Amino acid sequence: MPELDLSASSVDLTRAICDVPSVSGDEKTLADAIHRAIGALSHLDVHRDGDTIVARTDRGRGQRVVIAGHIDTVPINANVPVREVDIDGVPHLWGRGTVDMKAGVAVQLKLAAELVDPRIDITWMWYDHEEVTADLNGLNRLSRTRPDLFAGDFAILGEPSNGEVEGGCNGTLRAVVRTHGVRAHSARAWIGENAIHHAAPALMRLAEYRPRNVTVDGLVYREGLNAVRIDGGVAGNVIPDLCEIEVNYRFAPSRSLAKAEAHVRNVFEGFDVEITDGAEGARPGLDAPIAQEFVAAVGATPKPKYGWTDVARFSALGVPAVNYGPGDPHLAHHDEERVPVSQIETVERSLRAWLTAS
Amino acid sequence: MPELDLSASSVDLTRAICDVPSVSGDEKTLADAIHRAIGALSHLDVHRDGDTIVARTDRGRGQRVVIAGHIDTVPINANVPVREVDIDGVPHLWGRGTVDMKAGVAVQLKLAAELVDPRIDITWMWYDHEEVTADLNGLNRLSRTRPDLFAGDFAILGEPSNGEVEGGCNGTLRAVVRTHGVRAHSARAWIGENAIHHAAPALMRLAEYRPRNVTVDGLVYREGLNAVRIDGGVAGNVIPDLCEIEVNYRFAPSRSLAKAEAHVRNVFEGFDVEITDGAEGARPGLDAPIAQEFVAAVGATPKPKYGWTDVARFSALGVPAVNYGPGDPHLAHHDEERVPVSQIETVERSLRAWLTAS
Repeated sequence: MPELDLSASSVDLTRAICDVPSVSGDEKTLADAIHRAIGALSHLDVHRDGDTIVARTDRGRGQRVVIAGHIDTVPINANVPVREVDIDGVPHLWGRGTVDMKAGVAVQLKLAAELVDPRIDITWMWYDHEEVTADLNGLNRLSRTRPDLFAGDFAILGEPSNGEVEGGCNGTLRAVVRTHGVRAHSARAWIGENAIHHAAPALMRLAEYRPRNVTVDGLVYREGLNAVRIDGGVAGNVIPDLCEIEVNYRFAPSRSLAKAEAHVRNVFEGFDVEITDGAEGARPGLDAPIAQEFVAAVGATPKPKYGWTDVARFSALGVPAVNYGPGDPHLAHHDEERVPVSQIETVERSLRAWLTAS
Repeated sequence: MPELDLSASSVDLTRAICDVPSVSGDEKTLADAIHRAIGALSHLDVHRDGDTIVARTDRGRGQRVVIAGHIDTVPINANVPVREVDIDGVPHLWGRGTVDMKAGVAVQLKLAAELVDPRIDITWMWYDHEEVTADLNGLNRLSRTRPDLFAGDFAILGEPSNGEVEGGCNGTLRAVVRTHGVRAHSARAWIGENAIHHAAPALMRLAEYRPRNVTVDGLVYREGLNAVRIDGGVAGNVIPDLCEIEVNYRFAPSRSLAKAEAHVRNVFEGFDVEITDGAEGARPGLDAPIAQEFVAAVGATPKPKYGWTDVARFSALGVPAVNYGPGDPHLAHHDEERVPVSQIETVERSLRAWLTAS
């Protein structure tokens, strides 16, 4: 069983936790190591729920921030253990998890051990099953069983954001648009009715759709409505009786899920529409004073986050939340996943400065 | 090994050969039985090629007709052995092959044995592998290796036509229309290009297409251009980079395959079109005097055949050909395949009358 030395540098700590594989569902070894290391610290109250670990300071500060990171990764592809590589003279850590998101977790672990007396109370959360379906997600589970642990004035999720502050996130909704027809032999097509031909106007609406740009709390969110799958046909000589178009709507965090659903139904008015999946986005929450102080302290220009992330779970509980972590999000899940060493150090320094400034 | 009694009634003979299963690829037992029964008849020259049997009279008549039928069926689905059933008081034979096309073959076998001295020379052909791909088709194989056996003034294919004369057949062509795009995460759709959306105008052209009705040798052929399959998509959160529409064009026998291909390319001008498969149709050939005599003798009103059948192979060799057989073509391949007994008897009587009239 690996032991974690939380007094090591955040770069060494990144390497150490990347070298303990923790593909979703297999987080126990790493969770145990974190639990042992964090559990030894007397300034933290530690809770464990499955492979999710929560550690809280309780200094009686007037404000509390929740700082969270998931400890699982997508599957390894011959990219563990981590290697140190230079790219154009810039030192990197290269391997699975370096971006998504063990560098962020390493910074959090180091600061959790070091900051015995922060100026804001901190709730640290390291959780399992982020890279798989929502029903397995450790943060989702904990938000149902222990919503009290999510209490706070602000939340920071250490998802890769290139060391920038990415506020909130777009919502996402999936729907299936179905067109129907009547089967017939294609030599006698007039006896049937072609469901694929009936899909033409639905696709035209998608092709002609102009997505909105929506400003929310000062950040501009780009929306999108796209077909992600189309499927129809029985055999090479049969007029098909069914065609399905799966669409994905990404919508600004100012729009509720109900409004998003109504919008999709409106776009496909006259068609058979089934909503299959949906999650509201999260407002950036950057108008809160604590959020503005944070942005100023880390010296970043806030940007909108387009992809859906777990910040939306905090947002749903009324806690404004941002993404802030080392690593380029475009390299997440990539087989060439790697993080510049300097980004890990910058994020560590900035977070420490904000949490300790007098 | 079953023995066939060619002196039995054509109805009994239908039942007997239906009860010898001969799903495509498994025709040998039935072909052997036919070969033995026909080989015993001294008025016929018999050739065998695989499971295809050819039997010719050689009376030195001025004219020759080729009468052909396939001996294979589509797979059995608990509908062999054949049952006798009454439907609304009408006696039927019920089971696999009764329609497509062992009733037709039974009539041919009976007349082949009986007509020792027909007024027109006859080439009988019973062949294998009609219900599968063209490269396995026994008639196709024989037309390449022994085109001389196809010599004739007229050909009758015993395919089910409800005892009517169905002239010629439409041609058929398949093509794949592809649209292309650029993959991206659906949360950042503007980085990619949606191939499914690009398919919208291609589907609109299909939806708005008005097929022709074309008169050929007095029969009206209905054409058709249809999507038979559509397929696109990578994952629920990915902008797809490829969409494929498979189309099937059924075209009148007055149009060549090259012209049909040009037409499809013209309809989808500006799109990436791959022609994957094609076969020319067959003109009805009902203007030939021998064809007109045949139609008059059987007392039928000729109709166009829409589906592609092996008459096109005769047509391609310069022999006018029609479909004429017992059974409703809509019940071919159906699990409730069945033929009215009276249709078998009518076709037998009509063919005999035409082949023996003085």
